[in-house]
Amino acid sequence: MFTGLSAFPLTPLRDDAFDEAAYARLVERLVSAGVDSITALGSTGSYLYLDREERRRVARATVTLAGDVPVMVGIGALRTSQAQRLADDAQDAGASAVLLAPVTYQALSPDEVFTLFEDVTAGLSVPLVVYDNPRTTHVALTDELHAQIAALPNVASIKIPGVPSDPRDAAARVQALRERIPGTVSIGVSGDWLAATGMNAGCDAWYSVIGGTLPDPALTITRAAQAGDHAAATAESARLQPLWDLFLEHGGYRVTAAIAEHLQLVAPDCLPRPVLGLGAAARGRVAEVVDQLGLRG
Amino acid sequence: MFTGLSAFPLTPLRDDAFDEAAYARLVERLVSAGVDSITALGSTGSYLYLDREERRRVARATVTLAGDVPVMVGIGALRTSQAQRLADDAQDAGASAVLLAPVTYQALSPDEVFTLFEDVTAGLSVPLVVYDNPRTTHVALTDELHAQIAALPNVASIKIPGVPSDPRDAAARVQALRERIPGTVSIGVSGDWLAATGMNAGCDAWYSVIGGTLPDPALTITRAAQAGDHAAATAESARLQPLWDLFLEHGGYRVTAAIAEHLQLVAPDCLPRPVLGLGAAARGRVAEVVDQLGLRG
Repeated sequence: MFTGLSAFPLTPLRDDAFDEAAYARLVERLVSAGVDSITALGSTGSYLYLDREERRRVARATVTLAGDVPVMVGIGALRTSQAQRLADDAQDAGASAVLLAPVTYQALSPDEVFTLFEDVTAGLSVPLVVYDNPRTTHVALTDELHAQIAALPNVASIKIPGVPSDPRDAAARVQALRERIPGTVSIGVSGDWLAATGMNAGCDAWYSVIGGTLPDPALTITRAAQAGDHAAATAESARLQPLWDLFLEHGGYRVTAAIAEHLQLVAPDCLPRPVLGLGAAARGRVAEVVDQLGLRG
Repeated sequence: MFTGLSAFPLTPLRDDAFDEAAYARLVERLVSAGVDSITALGSTGSYLYLDREERRRVARATVTLAGDVPVMVGIGALRTSQAQRLADDAQDAGASAVLLAPVTYQALSPDEVFTLFEDVTAGLSVPLVVYDNPRTTHVALTDELHAQIAALPNVASIKIPGVPSDPRDAAARVQALRERIPGTVSIGVSGDWLAATGMNAGCDAWYSVIGGTLPDPALTITRAAQAGDHAAATAESARLQPLWDLFLEHGGYRVTAAIAEHLQLVAPDCLPRPVLGLGAAARGRVAEVVDQLGLRG
């Protein structure tokens, strides 16, 4: 479950409420495409914007729709007890694993971050993925802290925020982290534009934003890298460069929502306000890139 | 209500639940001391860590306990509709004003920040204080954006994150902002170690962390500055320098909680986990400073 392509679907809203019909369309595409796992309620799934009952509904819907595909559920919250309750809800819904980011309002010390993971993992009956996303959490997880957390019971994987763009530096980065953590803990790359580099560098998994909406090209990259065909993985990623340029300019979250809206998979304005999504010019550019690259599935 | 000392009490927890008895002790001290307003559920009051029902209870308790002292309530939330519901709850509880910070998970554009304030102010029947706290929100409110937001209906005050430490620079900073906003909108300083400088520089209010637990020294500074006795305000702030040193080293949030714990106003470990509060050495230093400076009220 902690290898290959983990697809992160959006949690589309309509009139500020969970749009379960649109969500079903998204998840069914992922199952048909053959992704290795589905991670509901990642950053792409707007987890921190949703209340407990909404998150429970999303978790249940995902497990039902995913069939045999393992489902991971994001349980990040500011307060330890909230994350623990969300873990309970995710497990009750049938999640195969949970994903936890150390989100902050008041900055946390390394000890406090460790305590969060210690408290939450202690109560789990499913494995946990450590979600390292400093751009949204404002927490810098050092390798020392990764090593401490990865040694906790139930920790199964680390979602790292990217790798250096040079292939040799990327391999060295993955190797350096791997030497600090138990051999049972997998490493998954994120930052979609770095996924081919990360998988070629030895990452076990790709925790993918775009894979939650366009699983086909994400699987092309993943399967090539898994087969050791680094050139093919790199070539497909290079073909998608116009898309990555949009990710780098506007962020993957808003661009992916615009893609899903353009493909009419979700209703317009599917992100939680005050997030407004892209403006008209950027949406036009997204549509152009999607059409030029023939991105549909 | 948007001038003088606004005291921000902690929201103490005991066993991860709102400790209403301890909270009553804190708020009653503020009323007895004669603060100009009480702001419940500021950053000091852990607003973003509490769920809707907890926040509703805190708002109601504050209004009941405050008597004739005006109560402002923090309504910050990641999603616009959540902030709107919290505003409704605060108004139902009898709050005289609300306080809104543009908290983020995904970074917000200036347009998105403006939209948040536009959407929330449109539904208010009480005034709103703009809460500019970049260290926790990671939003930089430019003066241009302040001007746009301050022109919205119901905006009554801006809580700025500090002023330059040089008195002339501080006065220039306050003046520069004042020129961009309507004359009806007050400016309140925060960053307690800068409060005397800010009040002397022409700020109308002090939105005070320490004032929520130790109102007496905060009132000494405030009343001196309001009377035009800049030297007395500066002298009292200088006397408190050992306290400000602790604020700068450990953050006002954790230091204030340690003071309240030391004075046995609240139970030990009153902050929401994973925030652990100060370690033993720092707590010892806090106790020393509190005792040496004779801080009790």
